[in-house]
Amino acid sequence: MEALTELVESLPDGVVVTDPATLENYRYDWSRDTGAGTPVAVVRAEDAGQVQTAVRWAASYGVPVVPRGAGSGLSGGASAVDGGIVLSLERMRAIEIDADCQVAVVEPGAFNAEVKVASREHGLWYPPDPSSYEICSIGGNVATNAGGLCCVKYGVTTDYVLGLDVVLADGTLVTLGGKRIKDVAGLSLVKLFVGSEGTLGIVTRAILRLVPMPLPAATLVASFASVVAAAEAVVAVRRTLRPSMMELMDRATINAVEDFAPRGLDRSAGALLVVQSDAPGDARTAEIATVEAACEAAGATEIVVTDDPEEGELFVAARRAAFPAVEARGALLLEDVGAAVPLLPDLLAAVAEIAERHDVEIPTVAHAGDGNTHPIIVYTPGDADSERRARAAFDDILQAAIRLGGTITGEHGVGRTKKAALPDQLGADVMVLTRKIKDALDPDGILNPGAVL
Amino acid sequence: MEALTELVESLPDGVVVTDPATLENYRYDWSRDTGAGTPVAVVRAEDAGQVQTAVRWAASYGVPVVPRGAGSGLSGGASAVDGGIVLSLERMRAIEIDADCQVAVVEPGAFNAEVKVASREHGLWYPPDPSSYEICSIGGNVATNAGGLCCVKYGVTTDYVLGLDVVLADGTLVTLGGKRIKDVAGLSLVKLFVGSEGTLGIVTRAILRLVPMPLPAATLVASFASVVAAAEAVVAVRRTLRPSMMELMDRATINAVEDFAPRGLDRSAGALLVVQSDAPGDARTAEIATVEAACEAAGATEIVVTDDPEEGELFVAARRAAFPAVEARGALLLEDVGAAVPLLPDLLAAVAEIAERHDVEIPTVAHAGDGNTHPIIVYTPGDADSERRARAAFDDILQAAIRLGGTITGEHGVGRTKKAALPDQLGADVMVLTRKIKDALDPDGILNPGAVL
Repeated sequence: MEALTELVESLPDGVVVTDPATLENYRYDWSRDTGAGTPVAVVRAEDAGQVQTAVRWAASYGVPVVPRGAGSGLSGGASAVDGGIVLSLERMRAIEIDADCQVAVVEPGAFNAEVKVASREHGLWYPPDPSSYEICSIGGNVATNAGGLCCVKYGVTTDYVLGLDVVLADGTLVTLGGKRIKDVAGLSLVKLFVGSEGTLGIVTRAILRLVPMPLPAATLVASFASVVAAAEAVVAVRRTLRPSMMELMDRATINAVEDFAPRGLDRSAGALLVVQSDAPGDARTAEIATVEAACEAAGATEIVVTDDPEEGELFVAARRAAFPAVEARGALLLEDVGAAVPLLPDLLAAVAEIAERHDVEIPTVAHAGDGNTHPIIVYTPGDADSERRARAAFDDILQAAIRLGGTITGEHGVGRTKKAALPDQLGADVMVLTRKIKDALDPDGILNPGAVL
Repeated sequence: MEALTELVESLPDGVVVTDPATLENYRYDWSRDTGAGTPVAVVRAEDAGQVQTAVRWAASYGVPVVPRGAGSGLSGGASAVDGGIVLSLERMRAIEIDADCQVAVVEPGAFNAEVKVASREHGLWYPPDPSSYEICSIGGNVATNAGGLCCVKYGVTTDYVLGLDVVLADGTLVTLGGKRIKDVAGLSLVKLFVGSEGTLGIVTRAILRLVPMPLPAATLVASFASVVAAAEAVVAVRRTLRPSMMELMDRATINAVEDFAPRGLDRSAGALLVVQSDAPGDARTAEIATVEAACEAAGATEIVVTDDPEEGELFVAARRAAFPAVEARGALLLEDVGAAVPLLPDLLAAVAEIAERHDVEIPTVAHAGDGNTHPIIVYTPGDADSERRARAAFDDILQAAIRLGGTITGEHGVGRTKKAALPDQLGADVMVLTRKIKDALDPDGILNPGAVL
C-alpha cells in the first residue's frame, strides 16, 4: 500500500480514487464479465502526462493497467483485474476540428456522438457509428476497431484513424501519423494500435479523418418469411452495390423491440431488412430500385420505401434499440460473429440450429451487408441450467463462425469473453506471432493482462 | 559455397540461379540505388513452399533475403545485398476471382493490371492504381502500401487487403485474415504487414477486396499560371467533395510530356489540374461544376470539360507518362513527399525554392487531392557537380516535407534511398518502437536488411 500512496501523491487531488464504492463501479464493462476482478485504484487521468505518470508507476511495481473509455464495451476488454489499476480516460474529452484538413483531433474519452456533433458544425462527418455511438468513447472505438451501421459503405474505425498518440508500457509517449492522408514512412504502427484492445499501449489522442456530410438517405424496409430469405437478398444486393446501410432483424428481435417501444413493425415477419441509400441525385432512386428488385426476387412479403429521412430514421432507431429491448428479457450473452457475405445465410441457419439444440432464445440482428451478425443469447439470471445452456450456445456459435471461415468478432473485440476461442480461429502459429509482438511492446505484461491473449 | 549448393539442391531445377549475368539483372529496382549489392543467388520461387525452403535455408546460415516483385520499386526497397539472396516472386502469378465474395485471391507476382483485368471479367474492380500499374506486382504494392491516382476517392492498398499469407523469418507460413470484410479478432496483423517493405515477412498470397466497376468518369482539365494557384484550387475542392481523381502537373512536366509524345497540352501553363468525377447519374455533372467553380475562383486561365471517357483518358495518360517523359531528360531522383492537403501550396512553393537554390530542374507532378507530390529531380549522369546538387535538393525536399508536418513518402516506401531521413520524420522513440517489432519478428535481421531501418 506504500506503493499506492506513491501513486496518489504523484498525481493531482482527485485523480486517483481508491474508495471501495467507486472501485466497484469500474469493475465491469457492459458484458458484465463474471471474471472481472477488483482494482486497487482508479486513475481518472486528465491529460497524457498523467497517463504516463500512472503507467510509469505501474511499470515500476509490475501492476496491471486496464485502460477504460466509457465502459460500454461488450466483450470484457475493460474488465478490471484484481490488484491492478483501471486507467480511465473519461475526463480526457477535448475535441478540436481542423476543417481545412478535414480532421478531428480528439482525446480518447470523447464520445463518438460528440465527435459527430462537433464535425457537423463544420459541414463534416465522422462516419463510424456503433449502435452505442451516443455513449461509447473514441478511445474504445480505436481499441476495438469499432464498426457500426454505415460500415457497409463507409468502412470501420481504422479507415478513419490518421494519427495516434500512444503511451507505451514503459510510459513513453509516441506520436504516430498525423493530419496527412497518405503516409507510408515506416511500419504501419497506427494501424497496429487500432484494434489492439489496450494490450500494446494506451491511446491519449487520435487524429480522425472526416468527410463531407452525407446526403439524406432513402430507406427501404423489406419483410421476409425467414432470416435465410432476407440474407439471400443481402447477398444479391451486394453483388452490384454498396448501400449506405443494410441491417437485418429477425422475428424475435422485431417482437422484443415492439414489446419495448412499439413502432408498428410487422411482428409476423420472419426477418426485416432495413436498407438505406445516400447516393447523390437520381442515383439514390436507382439504388433503391435495385435493392427492391433483389428483395422481391428473394421472396419479400412486403416492401416499404420512403424518401423521408425522419421516417427512415424511425426504422433505424428500431434496429438500434435491439440490445436494450432484448436486455429487458433477461441476461444476455452477446455474439459478434461474422463470415464472408455469401455465407451469411449459412451463418444465420447455424445460429437457428444452435438455438433449437440448446433450447435457448437467440434473437439476432446483423450488419448484414458486411456479413457481421449479433446473435443475442438470452438466459435467466440465477437459473444455472439456463445459464449453462446459454454458455454452450455461445461457444457453439463461435465455433460455427470459425467453421465457415469467419470470425468470432467483427467489431466488438475479443476482450476476455471470447479469448478462449481466439486460437481456434487464428491457429497456433498466428498466436505465437501475436505473442511475440505483445512481448516486444509490453515485456512485463502490465497492459490489459488477460484481454485477447 | 557449400551452403549455396545445399540451397540449389533443395529446390527444383531452375529455381535457384547463380550465373553472374542473371545476378546483375536482379541487383536494382527502378531507383537504380547506387548502394545496391550483388546477390549470391536469385531464387525464383514457384510456390509458398519454395519460399519457405529458401527462407529456412537463409535463416540457418544467416543469409540476407531481399524479396522482389516486379522490380518497379522507386526507393531501393528491392536493392540486392552483397552476399544475400534475392527472393523473386515473379513466377507466382495466379489470380482467382471469387465473384460472390467480391475478392481476388492473388499470388504476389501477379501484376496490378492483371488483377484489374481478371476482376473486370466479373464486373468487379480492384481500385489501387499506381502509375506503374501495368508493370508493378501486387506483392510490391502490398509491401509499399501503394497508392495511385484513384486514392483520393478510393483509398490505398491497405484499404483493399483482407487477408495475407506470409512466410516469416524462420520459414513459418501464417495465414492472416480471410474473405470476410469485418474482423477484429486479435491484433491487426494484416495491416502491420502491409507497408512493411519485406522487413517482417514475405507475402505469398493476398486476398484483395473488389468493388463494383466504377461508372464512366467526366474529366476537367484546368490551366493555371502557377502551381500554387492550382494547389489553391485543390484545397478549395477538397473542402466539399472527393473527386475520383485530382492530379497536378507543373510546367516543366507538361513540356517534358509534350517533348516525349505530343498531346497538345498547353505548354505555357504554369500548372495543369486533371480532375475526374465518376459520381452516379446527375451528380457527376454537379461535381464537375463544383470543381469548375473552384478552379475559376483560384484563377484558372483555361478550363476544358469532357464527358467522353476516351478523351479524358488522353489527359490521364499524359499524367501517367510524366516519369518516362522526364526520364528522357537525364537521370532522376524521385521524391514522394506529402503533407496535409491545405499545406500543398506551401510544399510546392518549397520545392520551387529548393530547385532554384540548388540550380536543378525539378519537374513536379502530384496526386494533389491527397497532398502527395512527386518532385522529380533531374541530373546529368557522370557530372559530379550536377549529381551533388541533385542529392542536396533531394535531402532538402525531404526536410521541407518534415518541417510541414508531412511525410518523406506517401506511397513509394522508404526503401534504402530515404531511410536516412526516416528518424527525422518519426523521432527517436518511434524508431525504437519500430526496432522492437522488427527484432521480435526477425531477430537475426535476415529480411531485407538495410531497407527502412
